[in-house]
Amino acid sequence: MRKLDAQAIEDIALGATILGTGGGGDPYIGKLMALQAIEEYGPVSLIDVDEVPDDELVVPSAMMGAPTVLVEKIPNGEEPFKAFELLKNHMGKDIFGTISIEAGGLNSMIPLALAARLGLPVVDADGMGRAFPELQMVTFTIYGVSSTPLALCDEKGNSILLNTVTNKWSERLARVLTVEMGGSTMLAIYPMTGKQLKAGAVRGTMSLAESLGRAIRESKLNHVNPLDKILEITHGHLLFKGKITDVLRKTTGGFARGKAIFEGIEEYKDKTMELEFQNENLVARVDDQILASVPDLISVIDPDTGKPITTEMLRYGYRGVVIGIPCNEKWRTDEGLKLVGPRYFGYDIDYIPIEERVKGVRVR
Amino acid sequence: MRKLDAQAIEDIALGATILGTGGGGDPYIGKLMALQAIEEYGPVSLIDVDEVPDDELVVPSAMMGAPTVLVEKIPNGEEPFKAFELLKNHMGKDIFGTISIEAGGLNSMIPLALAARLGLPVVDADGMGRAFPELQMVTFTIYGVSSTPLALCDEKGNSILLNTVTNKWSERLARVLTVEMGGSTMLAIYPMTGKQLKAGAVRGTMSLAESLGRAIRESKLNHVNPLDKILEITHGHLLFKGKITDVLRKTTGGFARGKAIFEGIEEYKDKTMELEFQNENLVARVDDQILASVPDLISVIDPDTGKPITTEMLRYGYRGVVIGIPCNEKWRTDEGLKLVGPRYFGYDIDYIPIEERVKGVRVR
Repeated sequence: MRKLDAQAIEDIALGATILGTGGGGDPYIGKLMALQAIEEYGPVSLIDVDEVPDDELVVPSAMMGAPTVLVEKIPNGEEPFKAFELLKNHMGKDIFGTISIEAGGLNSMIPLALAARLGLPVVDADGMGRAFPELQMVTFTIYGVSSTPLALCDEKGNSILLNTVTNKWSERLARVLTVEMGGSTMLAIYPMTGKQLKAGAVRGTMSLAESLGRAIRESKLNHVNPLDKILEITHGHLLFKGKITDVLRKTTGGFARGKAIFEGIEEYKDKTMELEFQNENLVARVDDQILASVPDLISVIDPDTGKPITTEMLRYGYRGVVIGIPCNEKWRTDEGLKLVGPRYFGYDIDYIPIEERVKGVRVR
Repeated sequence: MRKLDAQAIEDIALGATILGTGGGGDPYIGKLMALQAIEEYGPVSLIDVDEVPDDELVVPSAMMGAPTVLVEKIPNGEEPFKAFELLKNHMGKDIFGTISIEAGGLNSMIPLALAARLGLPVVDADGMGRAFPELQMVTFTIYGVSSTPLALCDEKGNSILLNTVTNKWSERLARVLTVEMGGSTMLAIYPMTGKQLKAGAVRGTMSLAESLGRAIRESKLNHVNPLDKILEITHGHLLFKGKITDVLRKTTGGFARGKAIFEGIEEYKDKTMELEFQNENLVARVDDQILASVPDLISVIDPDTGKPITTEMLRYGYRGVVIGIPCNEKWRTDEGLKLVGPRYFGYDIDYIPIEERVKGVRVR
């Protein structure tokens, strides 16, 4: 167990946004919520997965919705708390701690804000090791953990308890509710025992995010290239350097869908990258050759600052470095690929791990 | 208090379908559910509103969805029971009895089936004195009764508890859920005290439906014109006799919307009636003159049998008599007309009570 202070929160928010692979919510809003909470209630305890007793209850707290909406619709801070209390009362059982459902600017922060307020520890883990657009896309699903009972709250005061027959049904029902409620809601979801957590979680996600964020921050002070540090910490691969010449984007069915076109610069001159996303980046192609696909992570980094550029921030004229990061091994199983492989997202391609994909690619 | 046997249920189902003004669900399915339940569990007690103690809890049980869907998607009988149990457990309070949310072929029957199974009485009243397409459209809303906590179940095993800030929000959220769940769901909704019931209910609806159904049944035996009996019992008005020449229909947003065109016969020859509906019949026009509008009741009756023709049964070539029935006085208040007046449904017309409208009409 260790305490997370304001600096740790800044670092985690930044690092988690890289792991958010373009999605996971706006880091600015999430950070504000978490910083305000620890200022008011004191630092948060970060505990290891193995510090959670087998029979205790851990409940992730998360935002649901399209990041494009959240930029304009700031949660009022009460909703995550209300969702958590609603679930707790419904289950009639004390909750030992909370955890991020996914790595991402917002969803790494919500549990911290909540934990500070409730005096609960946050587990150093998450359910993806990255961000994904749909509720059932967590490693917990692979391990048979139910997403329900699930509590969902909006900023108007509406609250809902779901009990569903599959995690995909939770996605479907919570999604239409979230769209109807204005595009974003707060959830308490996937209540699980310590035993289930130990089997299903992606371990160490918060610490990894913190290392990443710290490295980017310190690279500026030390005049080091932040990109090198990011690739080193994540075991990532440089995929492309380019300038954005086009961004197509629409918010449909509660998702921010679209693609960005990068024209290559430096050693990637005369090449074109197409990056497709659904909240998160899904597939990166250079001149029709796939360089990376879900479930591996694809992130766009500002080459000067090392800071991530989320899908809602992609703009014409921006320079970006596109990197690929190997996903957690749980996603590379048959069950994992059924949930989050390229075919689930409508691509008629097999998943090939990024380490193998990049081996086949020679730029110039 | 009196007991309702199989004959009473047949009569109520038939009469309630006339009060359902084209909507309220298919009487055949509802009747089967209720008859099966009383066969298994015995007759149901029908009690007067004043027999409910002020501090006891009464909970309406209802189907939500487009009648066009329900014809093909028969509820399995477990869902109303599950919704009721879910709400009861959530509230942690015993439920004294149940009641129809609306008069209609299905929603007059669901509470009977449930009451038989649970050994609870059914209150001789409802929340509309007719049927309406949206959840907030009950006289209880006028009297400040909240629609939530609200339990909603589908036939797949998904169940949901809603707590909303307004009854209109319950409509919005339960509607998108119902659409996503396949078009129909079962609800336990508007939990209310005996005191609230006494203030807000439309009294005597079940007995009225039974009288209507009995009159139609007996008219056949006695070779009496059923239409005359219907108009007498309901204080209704004959609006038109015609043959259906066109039916436009689409199911959108969880509703069956459309209109039927009647070409006049007998004394209405050379005239045309246009009947618009959203689950229920909304406005009846003859040659652009409005003869009746919500909240007054508009029903189509088969002139030979006296049986109602619901909106989903309207077909080219059918002969129908269109009648108008004055709505309950609670709907004729400012608050009532705000909820269910013609302007709410998008018509730029004032509500004029049917008694006044028909005075101004001379056919030939």
